[in-house]
Amino acid sequence: MKILVINPNTTESMTKEIGTSARRCAQPNTVIDVVTAPWGPRSIEGHFEEVLAAAATTQLVARHQNDYDAFVIACYGDPGLYAAKEVTQRPVIGIGEASTLLACMLAHKFSVVTVIDRIVPMLEDMISRYGLSKRCASVRSSGLSVLEIEEDPLRAAREIVRVARRAIEHDGAEAITLGCAGMGQVERIVADELSDVPVIDGVVAAVKSAEALVGAGLATSKLRAFATPEPKEIVGFEALTRSSDAATRTPTPSLGAVGSG
Amino acid sequence: MKILVINPNTTESMTKEIGTSARRCAQPNTVIDVVTAPWGPRSIEGHFEEVLAAAATTQLVARHQNDYDAFVIACYGDPGLYAAKEVTQRPVIGIGEASTLLACMLAHKFSVVTVIDRIVPMLEDMISRYGLSKRCASVRSSGLSVLEIEEDPLRAAREIVRVARRAIEHDGAEAITLGCAGMGQVERIVADELSDVPVIDGVVAAVKSAEALVGAGLATSKLRAFATPEPKEIVGFEALTRSSDAATRTPTPSLGAVGSG
Amino acid sequence: MKILVINPNTTESMTKEIGTSARRCAQPNTVIDVVTAPWGPRSIEGHFEEVLAAAATTQLVARHQNDYDAFVIACYGDPGLYAAKEVTQRPVIGIGEASTLLACMLAHKFSVVTVIDRIVPMLEDMISRYGLSKRCASVRSSGLSVLEIEEDPLRAAREIVRVARRAIEHDGAEAITLGCAGMGQVERIVADELSDVPVIDGVVAAVKSAEALVGAGLATSKLRAFATPEPKEIVGFEALTRSSDAATRTPTPSLGAVGSG
Amino acid sequence: MKILVINPNTTESMTKEIGTSARRCAQPNTVIDVVTAPWGPRSIEGHFEEVLAAAATTQLVARHQNDYDAFVIACYGDPGLYAAKEVTQRPVIGIGEASTLLACMLAHKFSVVTVIDRIVPMLEDMISRYGLSKRCASVRSSGLSVLEIEEDPLRAAREIVRVARRAIEHDGAEAITLGCAGMGQVERIVADELSDVPVIDGVVAAVKSAEALVGAGLATSKLRAFATPEPKEIVGFEALTRSSDAATRTPTPSLGAVGSG
Amino acid sequence: MKILVINPNTTESMTKEIGTSARRCAQPNTVIDVVTAPWGPRSIEGHFEEVLAAAATTQLVARHQNDYDAFVIACYGDPGLYAAKEVTQRPVIGIGEASTLLACMLAHKFSVVTVIDRIVPMLEDMISRYGLSKRCASVRSSGLSVLEIEEDPLRAAREIVRVARRAIEHDGAEAITLGCAGMGQVERIVADELSDVPVIDGVVAAVKSAEALVGAGLATSKLRAFATPEPKEIVGFEALTRSSDAATRTPTPSLGAVGSG
Amino acid sequence: MKILVINPNTTESMTKEIGTSARRCAQPNTVIDVVTAPWGPRSIEGHFEEVLAAAATTQLVARHQNDYDAFVIACYGDPGLYAAKEVTQRPVIGIGEASTLLACMLAHKFSVVTVIDRIVPMLEDMISRYGLSKRCASVRSSGLSVLEIEEDPLRAAREIVRVARRAIEHDGAEAITLGCAGMGQVERIVADELSDVPVIDGVVAAVKSAEALVGAGLATSKLRAFATPEPKEIVGFEALTRSSDAATRTPTPSLGAVGSG
Repeated sequence: MKILVINPNTTESMTKEIGTSARRCAQPNTVIDVVTAPWGPRSIEGHFEEVLAAAATTQLVARHQNDYDAFVIACYGDPGLYAAKEVTQRPVIGIGEASTLLACMLAHKFSVVTVIDRIVPMLEDMISRYGLSKRCASVRSSGLSVLEIEEDPLRAAREIVRVARRAIEHDGAEAITLGCAGMGQVERIVADELSDVPVIDGVVAAVKSAEALVGAGLATSKLRAFATPEPKEIVGFEALTRSSDAATRTPTPSLGAVGSG
Repeated sequence: MKILVINPNTTESMTKEIGTSARRCAQPNTVIDVVTAPWGPRSIEGHFEEVLAAAATTQLVARHQNDYDAFVIACYGDPGLYAAKEVTQRPVIGIGEASTLLACMLAHKFSVVTVIDRIVPMLEDMISRYGLSKRCASVRSSGLSVLEIEEDPLRAAREIVRVARRAIEHDGAEAITLGCAGMGQVERIVADELSDVPVIDGVVAAVKSAEALVGAGLATSKLRAFATPEPKEIVGFEALTRSSDAATRTPTPSLGAVGSG
Repeated sequence: MKILVINPNTTESMTKEIGTSARRCAQPNTVIDVVTAPWGPRSIEGHFEEVLAAAATTQLVARHQNDYDAFVIACYGDPGLYAAKEVTQRPVIGIGEASTLLACMLAHKFSVVTVIDRIVPMLEDMISRYGLSKRCASVRSSGLSVLEIEEDPLRAAREIVRVARRAIEHDGAEAITLGCAGMGQVERIVADELSDVPVIDGVVAAVKSAEALVGAGLATSKLRAFATPEPKEIVGFEALTRSSDAATRTPTPSLGAVGSG
Repeated sequence: MKILVINPNTTESMTKEIGTSARRCAQPNTVIDVVTAPWGPRSIEGHFEEVLAAAATTQLVARHQNDYDAFVIACYGDPGLYAAKEVTQRPVIGIGEASTLLACMLAHKFSVVTVIDRIVPMLEDMISRYGLSKRCASVRSSGLSVLEIEEDPLRAAREIVRVARRAIEHDGAEAITLGCAGMGQVERIVADELSDVPVIDGVVAAVKSAEALVGAGLATSKLRAFATPEPKEIVGFEALTRSSDAATRTPTPSLGAVGSG
Repeated sequence: MKILVINPNTTESMTKEIGTSARRCAQPNTVIDVVTAPWGPRSIEGHFEEVLAAAATTQLVARHQNDYDAFVIACYGDPGLYAAKEVTQRPVIGIGEASTLLACMLAHKFSVVTVIDRIVPMLEDMISRYGLSKRCASVRSSGLSVLEIEEDPLRAAREIVRVARRAIEHDGAEAITLGCAGMGQVERIVADELSDVPVIDGVVAAVKSAEALVGAGLATSKLRAFATPEPKEIVGFEALTRSSDAATRTPTPSLGAVGSG
Repeated sequence: MKILVINPNTTESMTKEIGTSARRCAQPNTVIDVVTAPWGPRSIEGHFEEVLAAAATTQLVARHQNDYDAFVIACYGDPGLYAAKEVTQRPVIGIGEASTLLACMLAHKFSVVTVIDRIVPMLEDMISRYGLSKRCASVRSSGLSVLEIEEDPLRAAREIVRVARRAIEHDGAEAITLGCAGMGQVERIVADELSDVPVIDGVVAAVKSAEALVGAGLATSKLRAFATPEPKEIVGFEALTRSSDAATRTPTPSLGAVGSG
């Protein structure tokens, strides 16, 4: 089984961390390729950045639609997830989606501990869109930016533990999902501190979910919401694809765009 | 990895079918044991029967709490699921829970096609409890009893396809979950008829979810809702356990009860 | 009018307290019989214990289905309530159900003050199932176990008042329901402390509701959710019934089981 | 126990019917007085008419706040209910409120069968305000006006049965509440047609609920939502009150307009 | 364009303030007439007072239904709003309605800062009725009565800022709506203190919304909920109308009542 | 006042229609500029196309952030709306957002009549995100594609009327919002057919809402959800901007990008 794990932001060091998480939990016979978004923001901490990342991410899934058995979008806001589910029938899993759905199997209520405060409403909207608000005790900010977590994981772990404890004490959280792809590297430290409380790294959750769906022979519905896009001229999309080709570092050299100008 | 799949009703032929479904999708290195509830109703089609099955099922999980890496409760109403999550830290997955959560990764909205009409409110309550009402297009009855499906799977397949089509056309369903453990045997037939629509057998979904959680090193939260039961005298439980021991056909002979009279 | 009030746990001293509450408020011509669950946990503080209590409680209602005009299940989690509503057409009222529904007539929002913290998610689920989440300001734990309330009611009253005040000040509660059948004995003390705030003992609420329904000539719906169980073999149920017969102290000797092995 | 049952519209023949319903189900020692709104619309079938009826109804409760043990507002939209709960500490029960809350004890889902179509959104809002939308299968119009029911109860019964059957078949209703105070006279006919389905007359439900609350020694919360109105000048209210003092003598017939200052 | 702005309470000084707010933001060619309720409470801080104000307000709209292009109800609880929408096809806008709907265009979540605590549940119900609970971070009381705001606006501004800051810090509010018509006079002061946070005066919001709807050629739906009241005798309404004529100070002398006795 | 109305798709003829709608209703002193997305799909009928359109639209708002008093995004799915609200403090209004919020002032429940069926779940999600699900009777597909409406507006009008009537009869709709920017040209025809039912063109609704907000001196909140994006490197964004510059036809030549590579 081959899974493409996409880092929707353009920070290569994060891609590497994501790959480590993904491979740590994968089955022996699962091949994990990891790829960085060819263009877009260095990190994703708001709607504007998400919109750019969504386009770049969807583009990658479209280009590799036949090259992998499943796709993982490794940014907690799941940028472009529903669009990506349209452009291929193979499972496409977001780490926000997978971590919250699996949390529901382990706890009555979970909390998300995420990065800076401004991201909180966006994640609350996402969880509401997935229909999981009732299961979500809270989304709490650690006050750290995505790149600060990259730079000082130990400090990040301390802050995450501190905030997770508040979620447990004040909000009734019984499990914690780590609300940033870059937090996977501190999962063990956080889990050791919070005994009896599952700590869920989204990358792990998404890879295992992808394996489960592929193993079960299940594919994305092609009715209504995630139906294949209509054949339609997309102005400037070739250019968009070409101009960004220079920057991209995809493992396989890839094929043409989904639509064509 | 060893998974215990429990048939909460007392119909052995269903246990066999469930085992076939479970093994069909399991990873090569997963050992599947299947067990029939030692006492209780022949099939579960209402709250009264569910209450009995919940007690028998929880008893089984308690008795085998250290013998397996994960447990699957193979009845769509997930009898005793939350109680079973209390009595062990190993993942316990219900087929209602797993099939609806996985459906959310494949479709914007799913419908459940289940057995006789009286079960519909019970499943709607279950889905609401799991927080997934927003993702559920409908729960529809096929008009068939659990045991009728057992007796004539081909007729059942036809009815399920007919009802699933209504869910797709009238309710906006984009995926179908099969709302009875006994429907796994017709999954292929139904899926072939409903092209582009994922058809999810709960047993498959639960086994793959259990593998995913175990593979990710995740355990059930022991805070609040699913905390280990308090040490406490349980009057008549020994007797209950003993009297039912006669009937039970568990693969491993098991140990003592959780509490003791 | 004859009402059977069931204590779903196996602590006789609680049954006595429940009887006192029930009789204090009953109409002069209402006969109250009180019965202890024949088997099961000493107190009910989690899903596992509830599952056992639900089976024992439902069994009692089934056995006495024609002996009483109405039934009250006197444990705040309403164990087996929906199952019991299936096995008889006579009204079956849970104290959780009755206290929250009556609270809605007296206050815009109510809070439940209950026992230990782990029970809180279970009661929140129950209130959500009843559709009353919007009317519920909070479910708060007093930190006391069921049996601690039994042992030291005055201390319990102090704690309940303290927690109720928090619910009033922080959560906007305008009425308090006492979230444990054993709290009826302190209702007066708590009510005296919380002037202008209705304090509702579930046993009182359920007995008065049962009288109201019987007086109005109303019976449980036998369509769909609470329809009479299908005639069906229930393996081991005779044994179950017999083994527990030894322990039970029902006021009337009763008749046979609902299903039969 | 003395209960004042208020007909919020100004049609005396309806007041008489309401009195018959109320007295039919009351306990022997309950005294029922029935009173007609001193001014306002002949029937209440919209927000405008409800606003007028609410003022007249609240005025009546205020004036008699110390004369009765409880008050019943006998119009299905519960005009002035929350205002009336403010002006006295004695229980004030609306027939919409009581019938839907009691329905929840008898069925998993109820439907309201009411008068003309334009009233449906108003009742849906009311049920949502009470937090009971989840328990309400539907609100359906019988197409009949309030006064048409008065004039030809047998025709009304036929229409109500026809619409109730649709609610049962299409919406999943398991109980029917009669969505107009004037429908009490056909309760028996409707109930006989719909076997196994509780048919709830709001007047009966409210009188029995009032008896239950008074019997339990419970009073309306005086915190926040239903607190006693602040002492405050109400321009034109003196006149409003005085002028109607002359007219009203409640239990016995009465006339005249309220506000003629 | 001519807009009638109604002060539903009977305090003339508030009417003057409301007029100042309304005219400050109106388009040059918009004529604003302001009118005080002819009878009713000096201020509206509860359901009882609201019921009276609703009747007086609806009466005014009915009387002037053809004299204005739109109507604004300038009390935050929107007394009589739905009734007033029935009695004319011209837009009728409540300041609670307009401020919360416009807030949704400017912020992900808004909080209402209102007067005394008892009004909070009423406003929460209103926001829920409008379907906006998800967008409302909180309704918070400033502890001030309507008339205290009138008397000491500077003190009021300080309190409003203090409470708004709590809503921002603790509840996640991103915009503040001023939950009382009398707060318009301090809008500027509050907005200057809370930089980056929109502060919305309901009167301004409602006048601009009325202009927008009239400018777009849109009228109130006359189907179902807001359909014109049925022709029907309304007992005592003539008298009611006449008696209040003495007190009213409407800009145009007006015509007859909607229904007639 | 200057408003920039953006057509997020790349079909110039639609831009022209949108301009006609926008100017028809604008105040005399409002200057309307209309602009076509510089790149992206010819029409937007799914998540994939929306993701591309969102990026192009946000880019346009960012580039013109200081050139206009307000911005309108003229595609019913509001592509990039929240991102665009981040990149400027001036009001940015989506036609989906404006039409549904204004509908709430005119009707108790509205329905959206939109293009092809696959768009329905996307719009349901949008309405849920805005918190308006309770006010939305239904989203119904006309079966027409965006470009078919462009080609044959009269046929489109007939279909829209037909579907709107179903929404009114079956779903309880009291107002209709036209769920595609291209439907503005048939607004009058549809409104004439559906008497008493407001028919709302999103472009009109958004322009009038923008005028209202600007007239009220209100700006977008810069706290949390819509805070200005962090200063951050955006790889390839210059290129993205440049490559698409060729295609764009913006009225003013514009300035630099928000972030810079």
